[in-house]
Amino acid sequence: EEVAKLLELKAQLGTDDGKQMFALKTPKGTRDYNPKQMAIRESVFNTIISCFKRHGAETIDTPVFELKETLTGKYGEDSKLIYDLKDQGGELLSLRYDLTVPFARYLAMNKISNIKRYHIAKVYRRDNPAMTKGRYREFYQCDFDIAGQYDPMIPDAECIKVVHEILTELQLGDFRIKVNDRRILDGMFAVCGVPDDKFRAICSTVDKLDKASWEEVKNEMVGEKGLAPEAADRIGEYVRMHGGFDLAEKLLQDPQLSQNKHALEGLTDMKDLFKYLELFKITDKVIFDLSLARGLDYYTGVIYEAVLIRPQNVHPSEELVSVGSVAGGGRYDGLVGMFDHKGRKVPCVGVSVGIERVFSILEHKAEASEEKIRTTETQVLVASAQKNLLEERLKLTSELWDAGIKAEVLYKKNPKLLSQLQHCEETGIPLVAIIGEQELKEGVVKLRNVATREEVDVSRVTLVEEIKKRSIQS
Amino acid sequence: EEVAKLLELKAQLGTDDGKQMFALKTPKGTRDYNPKQMAIRESVFNTIISCFKRHGAETIDTPVFELKETLTGKYGEDSKLIYDLKDQGGELLSLRYDLTVPFARYLAMNKISNIKRYHIAKVYRRDNPAMTKGRYREFYQCDFDIAGQYDPMIPDAECIKVVHEILTELQLGDFRIKVNDRRILDGMFAVCGVPDDKFRAICSTVDKLDKASWEEVKNEMVGEKGLAPEAADRIGEYVRMHGGFDLAEKLLQDPQLSQNKHALEGLTDMKDLFKYLELFKITDKVIFDLSLARGLDYYTGVIYEAVLIRPQNVHPSEELVSVGSVAGGGRYDGLVGMFDHKGRKVPCVGVSVGIERVFSILEHKAEASEEKIRTTETQVLVASAQKNLLEERLKLTSELWDAGIKAEVLYKKNPKLLSQLQHCEETGIPLVAIIGEQELKEGVVKLRNVATREEVDVSRVTLVEEIKKRSIQS
Repeated sequence: EEVAKLLELKAQLGTDDGKQMFALKTPKGTRDYNPKQMAIRESVFNTIISCFKRHGAETIDTPVFELKETLTGKYGEDSKLIYDLKDQGGELLSLRYDLTVPFARYLAMNKISNIKRYHIAKVYRRDNPAMTKGRYREFYQCDFDIAGQYDPMIPDAECIKVVHEILTELQLGDFRIKVNDRRILDGMFAVCGVPDDKFRAICSTVDKLDKASWEEVKNEMVGEKGLAPEAADRIGEYVRMHGGFDLAEKLLQDPQLSQNKHALEGLTDMKDLFKYLELFKITDKVIFDLSLARGLDYYTGVIYEAVLIRPQNVHPSEELVSVGSVAGGGRYDGLVGMFDHKGRKVPCVGVSVGIERVFSILEHKAEASEEKIRTTETQVLVASAQKNLLEERLKLTSELWDAGIKAEVLYKKNPKLLSQLQHCEETGIPLVAIIGEQELKEGVVKLRNVATREEVDVSRVTLVEEIKKRSIQS
Repeated sequence: EEVAKLLELKAQLGTDDGKQMFALKTPKGTRDYNPKQMAIRESVFNTIISCFKRHGAETIDTPVFELKETLTGKYGEDSKLIYDLKDQGGELLSLRYDLTVPFARYLAMNKISNIKRYHIAKVYRRDNPAMTKGRYREFYQCDFDIAGQYDPMIPDAECIKVVHEILTELQLGDFRIKVNDRRILDGMFAVCGVPDDKFRAICSTVDKLDKASWEEVKNEMVGEKGLAPEAADRIGEYVRMHGGFDLAEKLLQDPQLSQNKHALEGLTDMKDLFKYLELFKITDKVIFDLSLARGLDYYTGVIYEAVLIRPQNVHPSEELVSVGSVAGGGRYDGLVGMFDHKGRKVPCVGVSVGIERVFSILEHKAEASEEKIRTTETQVLVASAQKNLLEERLKLTSELWDAGIKAEVLYKKNPKLLSQLQHCEETGIPLVAIIGEQELKEGVVKLRNVATREEVDVSRVTLVEEIKKRSIQS
């Protein structure tokens, strides 16, 4: 890293010949995708989109920037991470921080009270990047949200089912989906003696429990946030609890929590949620976890977060180790109302799959495996062993394109046959259509299988058909 | 428009109850895509991506913003249209203005000297929007570029073939692809007596000929750009010429032009280009047009631009009227070298399809037609006519999801059968799987065809198979 910094400095100073130099890089926290990475990305997107479509979702798109005021007051302590555009005259703009706030703005603006939609797009956060862990400043979110007034917890359960399906299909190893409810948290804070105006701040601190120890979290509560140590200790007892339907039932017996209106609602709904998850046969992966808080301001009900776990091979008895969150979401019944001039509410629940971490896992897998990833789909290379056949090669290639065949030709007047075959080996093109004077005279093409080196003369009339037939077989 | 302005003012002033209001809109020159527009967008992308893959292209992606200095000095007079990000500490960033400069930066940074790649992404220009004509500040570009040292004009011809294929497949009506060469323009300027340092500025002015009359263009040359009127008049004679292979041959006989080294190279290559286009059987749509200039600084060789034409039904003898450019590109052999610290060059040629105009044409077409566009792919709705069957509906829906069937269920405890059927009518779901006490007892599902209203009992064991069978048929 030191060397990189020095090289950058050197680049800024300029070269020996006095020419001013520049940094040849992408902005901090961002990266390019090369063709191999794109192939992985495409396959991940296909899995996710298939799932969203299986659940009947439509898709929308919104601009990469919003009016600055659209984002104001939605993200709590995270607002400082928003990218603003320079004031070049006209409106003040910011890059979107997530896809949820633009979605709520879209619903209010178009007076939509009912929609199930997915949206896959990049969002922007001026956070401290940790690119090896898949934490970037520009990253994809794959969001699935259900907006509308419905009977409790049915759409909420479907969102969790969607996460379960996606993580299962991506084959990333074992995972857990933690669920909790903002109303339960609020009730718990009230019962523990947290003042009303400190709920959101304490919530943000509890949210750090997945990365920090309880001691650190308690110190922040008491030190930074000014909470009484006894209150923190009482919170500490609750946030150690996790379970399922049974835990919700047990907490409904808790003499204090059950007296709190918010907690009572949340716990009753939690029981329904687990009932539906049971019908979906996914309760083995879902944990009701009172330490789950999630930082964003806009959640009002159930919240959830999916984490991948790496089994400890050495000590199988030890606790499962989380390797980080890959999806999260929850219910936000008030957000659309913040945009509606009449305060008309549209209840919403949704989930966001953060796939950068998924990409890095799959990229490492691909690098480790011997299997070659193809980055093109070319079926055939049009080639020749003889000179002065460029025009004939171009003509045949064009005929193949017009027949819908994926074909390439080298852009050389007289390429060597060896370099043409090498191009096929390197890029995985399975067939070569070779022409020479003899073939042209006879109206045939020598079709070569790159892998087996078998060659067979095929009439030009049936060439397209033959290539299609072989492409299906392979 | 006046009313809109007043309403916006009113919104800024606040409502009667004193609550501060905000503008509920997307930023100027941008728009959302609703599910119907997304369906059109997806089908256009599929056509374009299929074509790019047919020609053996890989794909890459780059960040939405670049270091500001990466974009500096690449766009000539258009640089003022670049969006800058606010300086929030750290690097100075700008939103990408096109995909070509990021591509050149990518090649230099990764020392790639050979690639055929496509890149579909949004770019940003602080231009005057004309949204009804499909001119936005945030818009998609679909770029296809071939980088590498090859024999002349072969990749250039393929780029034009790609444009031809895409515009043919999109069925937007008739079109023409104009081609010219920066070297021919430079030679022409030299021969006409334009001083060297005015080439780029005069080139920008000539580029306006598709929108402005010759008189207006001449006035700008002489008035704003300070060109001698005689020089302008000589340019005027050349830029009226258009043809094909023959025009290139004729201009090679031009006693002055043929003496100019640049023009000679350009015209000789132009003959080769038309020879290859002839092999591709597309010369009927391609015009060698000396008035085509293209504004960007980085072009060094062949340039081209595709325009849609609307036949004049009233006076069929009149000239074809252009409804605007939908694709453009050219050769830029110097751009990668501008990023390479050693000035190492990578010759490139490419084309960019601007699809916003294509979208607006297809959206208007869709609105005008009676045909309903489906925005989901749901195959079946799980429904019931009886009460208290929510859990059974959820269970069946989940089974269908797990079997890969696209299924929906209404999020109501006891929805009316009528509203369940209405949901199918509205969203185009072709099948309903109805369950009731009787069906549950018998282990069957009543499968209803929404269009024909036919109902048949299907065993739950064969339900998935039956739905798949019917989905293939329709």
